[in-house]
Amino acid sequence: MTPPEHNPEDVAIDAWTRVLSRAPDQINAPRESDAELVPLPGDANACLAITIDTVAEEIRAGLYQDPYTMGWVTIMASLSDLAAVGAEPVGVVISASNPGDFERSFEARAALGMEEACRSLGTHVLGGDTNATPEISLTACAIGTVPRREALTRRGIGRGDAVYLTGRAGAGNAFAMARILGLSVEDFPEERYRPAARIAAGVALRGRATACMDTSDGVLATLDQLMRLNARGFEIDGDWPRFLCEDAAEVCKRSGRPEWMMLWGPHGEYELVFTIPADRVEAFEEEAPSLGLEPVRFGTVQERPALTAELPSGMKIDVDMRPVVDLTTAKETDLRLIIDKYEEIGRSQGLE
Amino acid sequence: MTPPEHNPEDVAIDAWTRVLSRAPDQINAPRESDAELVPLPGDANACLAITIDTVAEEIRAGLYQDPYTMGWVTIMASLSDLAAVGAEPVGVVISASNPGDFERSFEARAALGMEEACRSLGTHVLGGDTNATPEISLTACAIGTVPRREALTRRGIGRGDAVYLTGRAGAGNAFAMARILGLSVEDFPEERYRPAARIAAGVALRGRATACMDTSDGVLATLDQLMRLNARGFEIDGDWPRFLCEDAAEVCKRSGRPEWMMLWGPHGEYELVFTIPADRVEAFEEEAPSLGLEPVRFGTVQERPALTAELPSGMKIDVDMRPVVDLTTAKETDLRLIIDKYEEIGRSQGLE
Repeated sequence: MTPPEHNPEDVAIDAWTRVLSRAPDQINAPRESDAELVPLPGDANACLAITIDTVAEEIRAGLYQDPYTMGWVTIMASLSDLAAVGAEPVGVVISASNPGDFERSFEARAALGMEEACRSLGTHVLGGDTNATPEISLTACAIGTVPRREALTRRGIGRGDAVYLTGRAGAGNAFAMARILGLSVEDFPEERYRPAARIAAGVALRGRATACMDTSDGVLATLDQLMRLNARGFEIDGDWPRFLCEDAAEVCKRSGRPEWMMLWGPHGEYELVFTIPADRVEAFEEEAPSLGLEPVRFGTVQERPALTAELPSGMKIDVDMRPVVDLTTAKETDLRLIIDKYEEIGRSQGLE
Repeated sequence: MTPPEHNPEDVAIDAWTRVLSRAPDQINAPRESDAELVPLPGDANACLAITIDTVAEEIRAGLYQDPYTMGWVTIMASLSDLAAVGAEPVGVVISASNPGDFERSFEARAALGMEEACRSLGTHVLGGDTNATPEISLTACAIGTVPRREALTRRGIGRGDAVYLTGRAGAGNAFAMARILGLSVEDFPEERYRPAARIAAGVALRGRATACMDTSDGVLATLDQLMRLNARGFEIDGDWPRFLCEDAAEVCKRSGRPEWMMLWGPHGEYELVFTIPADRVEAFEEEAPSLGLEPVRFGTVQERPALTAELPSGMKIDVDMRPVVDLTTAKETDLRLIIDKYEEIGRSQGLE
């Protein structure tokens, strides 16, 4: 099943995938897993997980000021894709494109962010490439391994599965909104924005989750994508504060914006959304602490392919991510205006 | 041994490597191989080869007009790094940053170049990332495998080793100079510039070559780098036409520029420079055809760390690549002027 083209980034991806042939032994189909999965040569039971991510748009938009953050996020974005397939990292290679300055202060700071991000998850930058370009663009390619039968993908969601988050989310949107709305840097300093990839959680979910995907595009966009790929919908709990990390709750309080926006916006973080079969929910929740997991149950799979939120008022509404995703990829560059539009779209759909 | 910082790109790389720690099981030291080498998990006798390359500067300079060429070169640049360590590719992931256009004609053409480059070497694009940016930047990360004991690196050159090229070189500089000097497109159409990575040659050189490096920065810059890393020099044959591919010879004829410039310039191709121990030269040359190799013998290793060319006149001169490399990374943007300066520097050193 090919999901419908529903936003400009998907259209761009389709333009590539129409021409590029798949490797005959590749395990995943396009878009169906966070990292590419190919058999590990010489070991029929293992596969390589490979993923590449470029951080350029967020830097251009001015969200990150400190090259440390740029380096940190670049590494974590790619490691998070390994986490979502249940892989353990072998290492990362990077490509750094930036204007050269005499003191090389950019490189020193960005490298430190990369180094500490890798170290926090027990991996290393193996090497890379540098280019002199007018704008900053950082790319990381992470390589990992996962037992072949236990690799997690975005597909495989079953009837009535329970939906979880690996932890409270919203840090990504909270940070972006704090910057764009002009919250004081003292209230949310950039150095507090250090989202971590959930490598250990991904490993723990091997053979347990029926599907898994990271929240790098925001929690609700993740559910939307999983819905399209699995042709099954979700009924989720609309008691939003339950799902927000501390920073996200704080930014809502200070900005006066509603909590659901922290899950609705496109600047995600690196939690994992995953599904557990209904008949294993009890056992899973019981063993979770011993696996190092603190899963946050978020809802249930429904057969109707819609994203339905049950609001605290008891009312159930279907939310449609399409206008949000379209806005993300539109040419509008006034980010404050985009935030207003996000809120407007959500409210018009009945979010509260 | 750390080679001296001798150009701005090395300075940038040093700024990164000073901060980034090595993976404890990483086989290569920084800069000592074209691809990063790490043990393949679960197989003590094999290692993964991983490399990443971004093509942005050449595109910005206007050298490539057709997105097909941009895609082709991006794939080949990374596969060539695998070739230089003797690895066979598992696959490639790509990251494409470019302005979106409505028809997605850029993506279709660039994807075709990537697809055909991969197909010509029996590998595939496994997946990737897309970003909307004002300028075009294409990154490929190639992953391969090579038996651990047979991985080729840039170090290991022995006393009196013979130096070879896998084939006649100069295609890269020929193409760049044809474009910059305004040779007619009919004389050297862009579609004739399809340099191929030497994967099969790299595999054949496993366990045979003492060192190997690709010519992506130009043949003489490759020798210069090998010299610095091995603290041994080369005495090379200055009968330049012997080493030039047909296109390079043709561009010399049409432009009136000297042949050595095709090896001197920085826009290389994907031949391999490699060394063979003196006592195995005869056997190597005998078995080369059965290995699918047509090696071009270029010179001999000398203990003095200098790059010495024996000119047809019988005169021996030492050539110094440093001013050439410095010019490559200087801020000058008039490429025609840079070509004139390349020639001037070479002539002042006695090249003819």
